[in-house]
Amino acid sequence: MTDSLRCYRCRESSPRSAGARCACGEALWFDVDADDFDPGGHADRSGIGRYLDLLPVDDLRGLASAAGGTPLIRTDRLDDFAGCRTWVKDEGEHPTGSFKDRGSAVGVADALARGCSAVGTVSHGNMAMSVAAHAAAVDLDCAVLVPADIPSERLAIIDQYGPEILRIDGDYGRLYEESLRVGNDLGIEFLNSDVPLRVAGQKTTTLELVDAFRPSAPDAVVMPISSGGHASGAWKALRDLRDCGALPSTPKLCFVQAAACDPVATAFRNGSETVSPATGGETIAYSIANADPPSGTRALAAARATDGAVVSVDDDEIRDAKARLARDAGLCVETASATTLAGTRRLVAEGVLAPDDRVALVATGSGFKESTVTGGERATAVPLADLDATLAARFGYWGDES
Amino acid sequence: MTDSLRCYRCRESSPRSAGARCACGEALWFDVDADDFDPGGHADRSGIGRYLDLLPVDDLRGLASAAGGTPLIRTDRLDDFAGCRTWVKDEGEHPTGSFKDRGSAVGVADALARGCSAVGTVSHGNMAMSVAAHAAAVDLDCAVLVPADIPSERLAIIDQYGPEILRIDGDYGRLYEESLRVGNDLGIEFLNSDVPLRVAGQKTTTLELVDAFRPSAPDAVVMPISSGGHASGAWKALRDLRDCGALPSTPKLCFVQAAACDPVATAFRNGSETVSPATGGETIAYSIANADPPSGTRALAAARATDGAVVSVDDDEIRDAKARLARDAGLCVETASATTLAGTRRLVAEGVLAPDDRVALVATGSGFKESTVTGGERATAVPLADLDATLAARFGYWGDES
Repeated sequence: MTDSLRCYRCRESSPRSAGARCACGEALWFDVDADDFDPGGHADRSGIGRYLDLLPVDDLRGLASAAGGTPLIRTDRLDDFAGCRTWVKDEGEHPTGSFKDRGSAVGVADALARGCSAVGTVSHGNMAMSVAAHAAAVDLDCAVLVPADIPSERLAIIDQYGPEILRIDGDYGRLYEESLRVGNDLGIEFLNSDVPLRVAGQKTTTLELVDAFRPSAPDAVVMPISSGGHASGAWKALRDLRDCGALPSTPKLCFVQAAACDPVATAFRNGSETVSPATGGETIAYSIANADPPSGTRALAAARATDGAVVSVDDDEIRDAKARLARDAGLCVETASATTLAGTRRLVAEGVLAPDDRVALVATGSGFKESTVTGGERATAVPLADLDATLAARFGYWGDES
Repeated sequence: MTDSLRCYRCRESSPRSAGARCACGEALWFDVDADDFDPGGHADRSGIGRYLDLLPVDDLRGLASAAGGTPLIRTDRLDDFAGCRTWVKDEGEHPTGSFKDRGSAVGVADALARGCSAVGTVSHGNMAMSVAAHAAAVDLDCAVLVPADIPSERLAIIDQYGPEILRIDGDYGRLYEESLRVGNDLGIEFLNSDVPLRVAGQKTTTLELVDAFRPSAPDAVVMPISSGGHASGAWKALRDLRDCGALPSTPKLCFVQAAACDPVATAFRNGSETVSPATGGETIAYSIANADPPSGTRALAAARATDGAVVSVDDDEIRDAKARLARDAGLCVETASATTLAGTRRLVAEGVLAPDDRVALVATGSGFKESTVTGGERATAVPLADLDATLAARFGYWGDES
């Protein structure tokens, strides 16, 4: 449990009231006290509660207890395609179907502990659903700020949890910082995508990954990147574990963007120290198309500090990877999550990853919330009377021997 | 690990080759050897692997390792509505979004161990998706038999995993036993909803529930009932734990059906010893509308043996319960799963459950796969320039003090 913030870049400490940004302009995250950490000290708890010593809250109950604890699945049938040994961390197995529940659980627990009467977020996807659900479970009011043109099916999924939904008519990009300012004035805790509370919760993805590979660590962790909040959490997890003497070795942190909107990958390729806004085109991986990622520069630093990389992949590669995840691993992931497999293949081709590397792909969200699943044309019509003959013709291995 | 089957009713033992039915006509399940059971002996394993001693397979890896291990969530905001103390077991947090992954994992592991080259199932919903996904992950061929009129969006979700889909033109009800017969002839392991392998896997839901409540047990477990396979698994779990001396007390097993199609509830109300086929009407809980449940009579026996009950609820009650699960617990469950909350309310009203009972509701599947979420009309359009004033008016608790 900690209550002070620090800038990863200039190392200056800030009080909680500083919000999300250091005076230097970069993103803040929570300090942890390495002396507090008792590995296995909360083994009786579920999900992210196992890492309570490293979190800025001291109570996680109800829906918050269901955040984290997602399975890590060995996906050997994907190895040939990826070019290395693959595991998938299936973050879709969360109450609201994405990793966002990790940060929402921590953020809502903090809002409760501090006596806030409302939480909020700027999102029209996974984060909106997640914050609304976690607020509902503890009877906190919730404000969800969405763009005016949000598709109705996504609005309906958010709406079921009962938040106050505001369609904002204007520059949606400006809302990120505007909402933090207004929220601070009004006592509404805005749990936007790279605020310190969310990053604290989201570092647990990587804490769990490292634990699952013990006694060694994975050679690399590959994640999609949008705001850079989850990527920052991954880096923070490694730093916390290192500080606690509990990191066997440092996995390369590799982040993947969609080529149509890849400001962080562009900065990585160009050797820049900071991320500049992209113009941003259309991609099927819409949920990670963030043209001006608030923690982009921090994520860039994370990739470089761990000898990782940031790459981008085009929509055809993403589509192919999504199909392979379903057909060769039995996993229906969000389109944006499929970038991890496409990106891993590219990282091996570029020599960042090696064929015998053990690589953990973070599938950040479930594909079941997307209506982009198509197909089914292959279904064959069979009269019931022809069942035996049809099955025998297609699967009749016994018949081959006669 | 066991390889012999037994009938719950006549207690006769049968070899594996007997299939799913005893000579007496009732459903078979696997024997377990209580001496084999080492509570906590597989604590290092994930999901259902913790109960390997009680399962008819001895290896669960890859996608199978992601079956089970779902969270149990204390849902205190539902207590008033339900009339008792409630917990929800969120089975939607599975690779394919439902409890069916438990039985598919065991069934596919067995098919692999026995050298079958294909598995199959008769389903057009959760079970079809689950069997297809688990077969894909281990490169087994898979036959999915669906009715001719299956909605295309559901077909598409099944199809992504690459099974052979056969639309059967004829009496879909006859297919259940027909497919087991043909599968036996051809060496295709049909993992239908109440076959012994599936019931063995599905008993782990209740094994986990009992473990989560230790040192006591829940007072009741409430589940939706369709084929009776999951309900039978719940009963088998309690019997296995009792045989191993590891059941603190016996929870009441309570099953809920949709009123439009409730053959098991009808038999329970009428005091019948067996379940007769219903005519079966339409219900929004389509995935449990089973007019002729193959393990209906066994489920009926389970409810009676544990001092539980079988009740039915109408579509308005189901709709209301589904909305409350989202708005008061942050859980988006499958429509059929909402019967558990509606049913619990009814069970308290009828005196089967008491106000201070600790009741575990099994939410069998995720609502994200259904396109029945509606709403979103409440979203308010706000010009960006009015953000401060709008939030202050709606959430401005600070403003009240000035």
